[in-house]
Amino acid sequence: MNVPTRVTLVEVGPRDGFQMEREFIPTDLKVEIIDLLSSSGVPAIEATSFVNPKVIPQMADSDAVMQRIRRRPGVRYCALILNVKGAQRAIAAGVDAVRFVVCASETYNQKNMNMSVAQSLAALREVVAMCAPIGIHVEPAVSVAFGCPFEGEVPEARVIALAEAYAALGLRDICIADTVGLANPRTVRRLLGELRARLPDCAFALHLHDTRGLGLANALAAMDVGVTTFESSLGGLGGCPTTKVSTGNVSTEDLVNLCDEMGIETGVDVEIICEASRRMQEFLGRPLPSHVLAAGTRRMLFTGVSQPC
Amino acid sequence: MNVPTRVTLVEVGPRDGFQMEREFIPTDLKVEIIDLLSSSGVPAIEATSFVNPKVIPQMADSDAVMQRIRRRPGVRYCALILNVKGAQRAIAAGVDAVRFVVCASETYNQKNMNMSVAQSLAALREVVAMCAPIGIHVEPAVSVAFGCPFEGEVPEARVIALAEAYAALGLRDICIADTVGLANPRTVRRLLGELRARLPDCAFALHLHDTRGLGLANALAAMDVGVTTFESSLGGLGGCPTTKVSTGNVSTEDLVNLCDEMGIETGVDVEIICEASRRMQEFLGRPLPSHVLAAGTRRMLFTGVSQPC
Repeated sequence: MNVPTRVTLVEVGPRDGFQMEREFIPTDLKVEIIDLLSSSGVPAIEATSFVNPKVIPQMADSDAVMQRIRRRPGVRYCALILNVKGAQRAIAAGVDAVRFVVCASETYNQKNMNMSVAQSLAALREVVAMCAPIGIHVEPAVSVAFGCPFEGEVPEARVIALAEAYAALGLRDICIADTVGLANPRTVRRLLGELRARLPDCAFALHLHDTRGLGLANALAAMDVGVTTFESSLGGLGGCPTTKVSTGNVSTEDLVNLCDEMGIETGVDVEIICEASRRMQEFLGRPLPSHVLAAGTRRMLFTGVSQPC
Repeated sequence: MNVPTRVTLVEVGPRDGFQMEREFIPTDLKVEIIDLLSSSGVPAIEATSFVNPKVIPQMADSDAVMQRIRRRPGVRYCALILNVKGAQRAIAAGVDAVRFVVCASETYNQKNMNMSVAQSLAALREVVAMCAPIGIHVEPAVSVAFGCPFEGEVPEARVIALAEAYAALGLRDICIADTVGLANPRTVRRLLGELRARLPDCAFALHLHDTRGLGLANALAAMDVGVTTFESSLGGLGGCPTTKVSTGNVSTEDLVNLCDEMGIETGVDVEIICEASRRMQEFLGRPLPSHVLAAGTRRMLFTGVSQPC
């Protein structure tokens, strides 16, 4: 098995995690969490989204969030956008990169973004035309890449076609998202291996969900075929907006712990991530779906931070 | 990566899971769950233990449990024992095999079983001397094989020495237990690979915990080095009796789902396991730490048993 010496983590909790919460998270707390995350050593944070606040009220304070966070040098602050208007707002707010999602399922794209896949791709073309000349990095994702709750199996060819469309627009950093938690190590290895072979100039990231307990196994399978960038969420916050299933993103502390245990460098301090997750757990008043947050790391166990009784 | 065509699952919930519960589980419910499990296709069930009921009151009804269950042909019903007296009781109650545990950590063995490792090994020798002539299978385990909350790192040599002691007693089916959830795919691959190389006549099982989210990744790593027998617990019931950490065994439904998704045959019907877990969840009145119990399988999602909203 190939295990890389180093991986790059992208923290998506402040966007993908927070947007699933019904209760409005105060802007101050959002800022506090993002600042904690940036102090942990994580090199990229999806800090917010610039979308219609009537549709996603949780993200109505995206401008204020971007304004108030302490920008740490070396950290890339990104935001999700769905169109040129969102991109303009994001750029005005000072993001380092904009992120864009198209689903590999027509129905899911329609339900989630109220656009057809063709309309999403057209919007992406406009975003790229606007961002490229001013040097704003555009990072596209293929969402629902391993199965759709509405359409069932998602043919690999559809994921590949979207990735090829991104590459044709000159985009090189492409994320493949297991939005519904239907990937397994075999399908991860096959799809990511195929994508890397077909688009050798592109770098692929894997957006991990732990819906059926396979998140970390899928990360390892992706590492085995050369993927070294992974997206996770503090405390395992997040889920799937169009399904009832509440278990969601792989928790960042679980992913960092996996890497720490296996000697894979992340540059991230797992204890600071746990601190941020505990803060969110206190605010939300429910246990978050994170293993390491509950059980601690090997080091915490051995040094008595989490004590045997 | 080596993925076997078939694996053998051992359901340990009725012993390892139930013994962690403070509230006494009525004998009728224990019997109902064991009968459900045997109807799922699982080939082996650790049904109870024959130990001191003052120490483990939950297992005080082991005789009644063994008497009342519907014995399904082809299913191996086992029980944990710690000495000859326990073995005698288990055999009188009609078990197909007795299981015996020694810890790779002296302190853990002392705290958990109130014996030194040498005393445990002496007891095992007596058990084997009693069981071998009457054809009762003895299945030993090396517990705390990947790290100890009291002693810290557990040298591989200590695990290997215990496994060699088992083999010297003529025992061939040896379980390696990640009791505290400190294994990772690298250490699993290394230790199980080494054990298989040194003791080629023995068959090794891996007793999986998901304390830090690595249970399924560890199962795959073990498969990669040729292990094909795994121990799990319905609903993820269980934990670590001598530590505060409540997250425990890998849930059987998560493990069966992994195998179903990757085309690895188990012979087990995941929906029946979920039914048993739901029954326990209702009785215990708290959500069990099982991903598939909460989210359903791909099939349930695609056929609308777990509906997108």
